[in-house]
Amino acid sequence: MKIEMISTGEEVLSGQIVDTNAAWFANVLMDNGLELQRRTTVGDRMEDLIDIFQERSKQADVILINGGLGPTTDDLSAEAAAAAMGVNLVEHTGWLEHLEGWFANRGRIMPESNYKQCLLPDSAILVDNPVGSAPGFRLKLNNAWLFFTPGVPYEFKRMVEEQFLVFVRETFGVTDPTRLAKLVTLGHGESTLADQLTALPVPPGITLGYRPSPPIVEIKVFARGSAGIQAMGDYVFQVKEALGNAIVTDRFASIAEEVHTLLVEQQQTLAIAESCTGGMLTSQLVDFAGSSDYLLGGLVTYANATKESILGVATDTLAARGAVSLETAAEMAIGARRQLGSHFALATTGIAGPDGGTDDKPVGLVVIALCDGEHCWVQAVRLVNRTRSLVRIMSCAVAHDMLRRRLLGENPIVDYPFIERRDMQVLNSS
Amino acid sequence: MKIEMISTGEEVLSGQIVDTNAAWFANVLMDNGLELQRRTTVGDRMEDLIDIFQERSKQADVILINGGLGPTTDDLSAEAAAAAMGVNLVEHTGWLEHLEGWFANRGRIMPESNYKQCLLPDSAILVDNPVGSAPGFRLKLNNAWLFFTPGVPYEFKRMVEEQFLVFVRETFGVTDPTRLAKLVTLGHGESTLADQLTALPVPPGITLGYRPSPPIVEIKVFARGSAGIQAMGDYVFQVKEALGNAIVTDRFASIAEEVHTLLVEQQQTLAIAESCTGGMLTSQLVDFAGSSDYLLGGLVTYANATKESILGVATDTLAARGAVSLETAAEMAIGARRQLGSHFALATTGIAGPDGGTDDKPVGLVVIALCDGEHCWVQAVRLVNRTRSLVRIMSCAVAHDMLRRRLLGENPIVDYPFIERRDMQVLNSS
Repeated sequence: MKIEMISTGEEVLSGQIVDTNAAWFANVLMDNGLELQRRTTVGDRMEDLIDIFQERSKQADVILINGGLGPTTDDLSAEAAAAAMGVNLVEHTGWLEHLEGWFANRGRIMPESNYKQCLLPDSAILVDNPVGSAPGFRLKLNNAWLFFTPGVPYEFKRMVEEQFLVFVRETFGVTDPTRLAKLVTLGHGESTLADQLTALPVPPGITLGYRPSPPIVEIKVFARGSAGIQAMGDYVFQVKEALGNAIVTDRFASIAEEVHTLLVEQQQTLAIAESCTGGMLTSQLVDFAGSSDYLLGGLVTYANATKESILGVATDTLAARGAVSLETAAEMAIGARRQLGSHFALATTGIAGPDGGTDDKPVGLVVIALCDGEHCWVQAVRLVNRTRSLVRIMSCAVAHDMLRRRLLGENPIVDYPFIERRDMQVLNSS
Repeated sequence: MKIEMISTGEEVLSGQIVDTNAAWFANVLMDNGLELQRRTTVGDRMEDLIDIFQERSKQADVILINGGLGPTTDDLSAEAAAAAMGVNLVEHTGWLEHLEGWFANRGRIMPESNYKQCLLPDSAILVDNPVGSAPGFRLKLNNAWLFFTPGVPYEFKRMVEEQFLVFVRETFGVTDPTRLAKLVTLGHGESTLADQLTALPVPPGITLGYRPSPPIVEIKVFARGSAGIQAMGDYVFQVKEALGNAIVTDRFASIAEEVHTLLVEQQQTLAIAESCTGGMLTSQLVDFAGSSDYLLGGLVTYANATKESILGVATDTLAARGAVSLETAAEMAIGARRQLGSHFALATTGIAGPDGGTDDKPVGLVVIALCDGEHCWVQAVRLVNRTRSLVRIMSCAVAHDMLRRRLLGENPIVDYPFIERRDMQVLNSS
């Protein structure tokens, strides 16, 4: 079965928004053992829409179309589908009553523009939208079933999960099983990882892929068919052996989620002091429900005066060593831990850029500290040729990785071949 | 001229990553008065790559191909291009010397796998990559110029800006001028905005579009050709008049950037106290270089004990009113402002979910406070049917909007038709 997707909308094609629906859809297909073969993106232009419906419906078996079902003038999907079919748009009385009722229940009159959403191509089958005003619909054109869905993400997702997948399973039966394992690495390059794995024969039914997505490089092991799935466990084990401590998590998509889970599992608490990362280190943990169990607080002390007043960093340290120094980072971590009474504390201070660097302390220099009740591990790394945003993202990854290693009883400071370390120190934290 | 893009890679097609290169590329085209007509995404499968190169090269004039130039086994673009052309891959001696020299300068030997990146389709023209190991190349197939670029974002972007655009301009000349204006709205729905604008005739050459992207809905005014560009200024002015205070910025993509700029322009300082937003409110400002000029600190006080010790929230207030209350939010803001000595302070406290709600204080209830030296404005909003992440994102938008309005001398608390307000209060902040 050939599944394709057509994303519509000037705002997707023109890059005003990133097509997260498309990424989500392909992921869900894979989780269900289905595979997307092609995705096409076109704008809100009537002739382009009609062309693409005609063209792809001759090649594919089922096509998920996303977007263009809203109430405004640039929403053209239903009209284009009718034109491609050579039929008229007709009023769907059931949906009109549903919409009028929905507005009436909220004490409002249905806006004029929503009437448009009750017009579907003649003979199209309505696909219920339980959470929005735009109904979906499906129709058969040439060789393919076209399945139309709205662009609003939570409406789209509900309709795919509750209706599209059911429709595909019932209409086409099940295909070859697939499975995907992901190993996240930090501080290594795609080509050096690949070189470390060339000696390892890839079993039939297994595909190996690399996805560099700063701060990490993800290694993907795809298995297709029963041979692949059978070989998978053993092969993944060998890959892990070969890569050793380059792998920072094999169960989550990010280091932050691994740290979150370890803190919850081990019932340990954390305090965070941030300068250049500016709340990002804290926010990456608050992303996960349950972070309130261990995260006692995050103190973004951007100004030197705040480092003194909130964290108790010594005026002398700031004067003698500067805000970006091993000593200041250590005092920030120790101060945050003391202030909040946590088991662990992380601190970052650095020069995110694009300005503010000196010869001695260039843009991209970041100092990261981790302390527990006994020790404070501090390292200064230099992140060259990175944007402001990327300096902050990489710094958070290294900080979380230090805590992750400490929680696993390993040395928090390790060599990352692709991250330059300028300096390091292990101090007493008292 | 018909410009298309082909994004390659299993990881893009299968949704393991979101195709931010594609969004960026389309945006840059538009900035240069060029228009993308279609974008196709295919996986790393040899036959699919050959098919799509053959097929689209018959329709388009120029095709930007992204990805598949890396050193690993799943990088197939050069091989597929050679097969589509019916030519061999040949070693590019110049690039081989360049790569060997690059590694030698760093005291390393070129990894075996990088040799692959020196093989280009016979007769292809090398496109220099000034910042990476994968060279680009271009070749003519059927009707189209195919322009191959690597997937690593900063390599891709440099090559598009420095080489692709120059190539297109020189080869095809200039097209119709286009221009785009964006108006960002908060707290209104796409259809209610559209209804408010239906009375306003859209001039020839102008297209009106809506982009809902929580927390905002963006209104886009596209102008094409000289008639459109001439009519634009006046039409945008009328749209602004019609929408009034629904518009939260007409010069930036986010409310945070507007707030950042106003704080810099007015030389005012800010302190932030966050509970449920967990560092996001602070981090959204630190995203912008120069935020250190006004952002004295951000205090993420997740635990009640931290709200007391760091911000000085009264034990009685927390006991009598709870952590999510107008009183606690006000004391958080007032405490942060006093602690850090800023002109303004923002505070958030709420229940981001998915758990932790009660009948009285349900999931999605968030209290937001803004104070200056005289007043503290506090409002409780209820964000229903939103994910944890979206509750946090919407809360940050409302908080930043309150500060934005205060900086413009307006009332910080306004009615948002699409955001339910439960309660509000204006207190003395001393």
